Amino acid sequence: MEFKINQVEFSNAVTEVSRAVSGKATIPILTGIKIEAKENALSLVGRNNDIVIEKVIPVSEKVEIVKNGSIVVSARLLNELIKKLPSDLHVMVTNNHSVKILAGEIVTTINGVDAEEFPTLPELNLSKRFTITGKELINIVKHTVFAASKNETKPVLTGIQFTLQHDTLTSVATNSQRLSLIKHSVHTELNESFILPSKALTEIGKLFHDYSSEIQVFITNTTIMFQANHLTVYSKLIDGNYPSVLSLIPQESKTTITLQTKDLLDAINRASIFASESRNNTINLQLTDQSKLVISSNSSSIGGIQETLNVKDFSGDMELSVTVDGRYMKDALGVIDLEEIMLSFNGAFKPILIHPVGHYSNLQLISPVRA
Amino acid sequence: MEFKINQVEFSNAVTEVSRAVSGKATIPILTGIKIEAKENALSLVGRNNDIVIEKVIPVSEKVEIVKNGSIVVSARLLNELIKKLPSDLHVMVTNNHSVKILAGEIVTTINGVDAEEFPTLPELNLSKRFTITGKELINIVKHTVFAASKNETKPVLTGIQFTLQHDTLTSVATNSQRLSLIKHSVHTELNESFILPSKALTEIGKLFHDYSSEIQVFITNTTIMFQANHLTVYSKLIDGNYPSVLSLIPQESKTTITLQTKDLLDAINRASIFASESRNNTINLQLTDQSKLVISSNSSSIGGIQETLNVKDFSGDMELSVTVDGRYMKDALGVIDLEEIMLSFNGAFKPILIHPVGHYSNLQLISPVRA
Repeated sequence: MEFKINQVEFSNAVTEVSRAVSGKATIPILTGIKIEAKENALSLVGRNNDIVIEKVIPVSEKVEIVKNGSIVVSARLLNELIKKLPSDLHVMVTNNHSVKILAGEIVTTINGVDAEEFPTLPELNLSKRFTITGKELINIVKHTVFAASKNETKPVLTGIQFTLQHDTLTSVATNSQRLSLIKHSVHTELNESFILPSKALTEIGKLFHDYSSEIQVFITNTTIMFQANHLTVYSKLIDGNYPSVLSLIPQESKTTITLQTKDLLDAINRASIFASESRNNTINLQLTDQSKLVISSNSSSIGGIQETLNVKDFSGDMELSVTVDGRYMKDALGVIDLEEIMLSFNGAFKPILIHPVGHYSNLQLISPVRA
Repeated sequence: MEFKINQVEFSNAVTEVSRAVSGKATIPILTGIKIEAKENALSLVGRNNDIVIEKVIPVSEKVEIVKNGSIVVSARLLNELIKKLPSDLHVMVTNNHSVKILAGEIVTTINGVDAEEFPTLPELNLSKRFTITGKELINIVKHTVFAASKNETKPVLTGIQFTLQHDTLTSVATNSQRLSLIKHSVHTELNESFILPSKALTEIGKLFHDYSSEIQVFITNTTIMFQANHLTVYSKLIDGNYPSVLSLIPQESKTTITLQTKDLLDAINRASIFASESRNNTINLQLTDQSKLVISSNSSSIGGIQETLNVKDFSGDMELSVTVDGRYMKDALGVIDLEEIMLSFNGAFKPILIHPVGHYSNLQLISPVRA
């Protein structure tokens, strides 16, 4: 194998595929990046148990393939080194899987490993396909990942459920105590549902975060593949039945109030200072009359806080006192960019429904806790 | 105790004195800040085993003292809370050392502790005094702290030695393998030497980092005090005899070369990738002829690197090969802002002397290691 490449081009590609590589991989070869020089392109692959990333760099004035071949080299070492090299690089495999990199007056040698031992890429049936934008993908990550369960005892809840139906992509995550859902319009004939591990979705979001162009998504029963600008990311899907969460969303409410998002978030952040002393981070929300919401939290060991917010709009019952886990409330409000939110209540022990006002494609549910 | 204060003013002061407070202090009261309302000013004190910080806020349109008194409250809690409060604050001590803070519609209560139990400030004889600028202080921190020893078996070497003599302040740190020294002009009649703990100096540098004004420094046999803009910081001095390091600095050299600082630092950074695999981070410097310096590092497990730098000026012996600890070389070059450096050698086993070209008030020494 032998090729010449612009340093910036190579460094960026190495950094991208390195995202999938863990220095602690149990199989030593998986701490490496597979580099393959083909007729028309250079390919880099990094992988872990969750995702596989392939970056293809087509031959151009920045890349010249001198001799085909492949090698696996330590991702950490390559990443650290290439960043620190100047100008143009000349890379070749010499004896015994040794990789020589020439850059001006700098000669580097790295011990590599035979690429034959590196797992091959998944082979997918590409018939089921839809398209989303980078911006939509980021939006899905932001609105779902935080709400997924961290508890591995119910594996499906550690993933994000995606449902394609009627030209709509519905993404939802829940840990049984809170739920977050967001809908996007997509053009598709598909009628499918699948569960993607939340860790993989987070990584995929980071990888495509500055891709303004469209991302092709291919799905099979076991695997999902995201593809844009010569970058391909594979992830396994989680096998299992996701609970039918849509039935949990209340269609009516006893009390509905509208508030400034920032006012409520600021109040919750302050109350959380005291709530963090209790096991469930308990914060109490109490509606006192048609225009006031009292937010309070108390800890016998450190003290307490109580503040009063103005409610903008109001409908339904006036009497209400609900106790929530402050962390869930913070997370929920933290992802809402819009100025106003609507909170809908069905009594002290029923989930609170949260909508950004005017954007009903996004909703969140939070179950109350015992005070 | 009762006072009214602008939130930003109070938050900044709490943040400043909190720097000295550790949440893990073994004496519980030292996890707190002492707040004292006096006739003409509000005083805040935070402390740990290394330093004591006092911030005084004189009465102004931003601070009004309603009733004298004092209290101790958790630094962590106060710091977290005050940052998150809006507008103007009204603070008062109620029953049982309870502190009530009113801010608009927000009522907060914090459990405090009797200030009688808080240690008093050191009382100093203020006869020995000199003045430095904030910029000089930062410069001293930058050029000395990294070179001090982390090993507590020789306590004096964990400190920075300061010497006042002939209108010059000489600051020096060494861990026996490397040394860094910087001189500043000061106007003083003093002829004194003292050792300040490097941890304390680091904190003091951070506290005064944006003080462009002059800092008054007072010294006694056991304590040092820095004072500027109503901020006072006390630190204990380290008792003991500092080694007479000036005699270690070679007055002559067999070989002297001049290089671009950045070129050498870049080369050392690259070589460090491989050097970090060896116990002493060994990097070899070899002078091949009058205009080339070869920098190399090799590891049998991961590979190796070799590169050639152009030497700008040269004098003395041509034959030279020295092996150094790459981390010491990186640290030394990292603090030099000037474009060119001069390296002076006295053979393979004698310390290397490093000067920024044209600025001989700063010098560093690095002892070679065995390859």
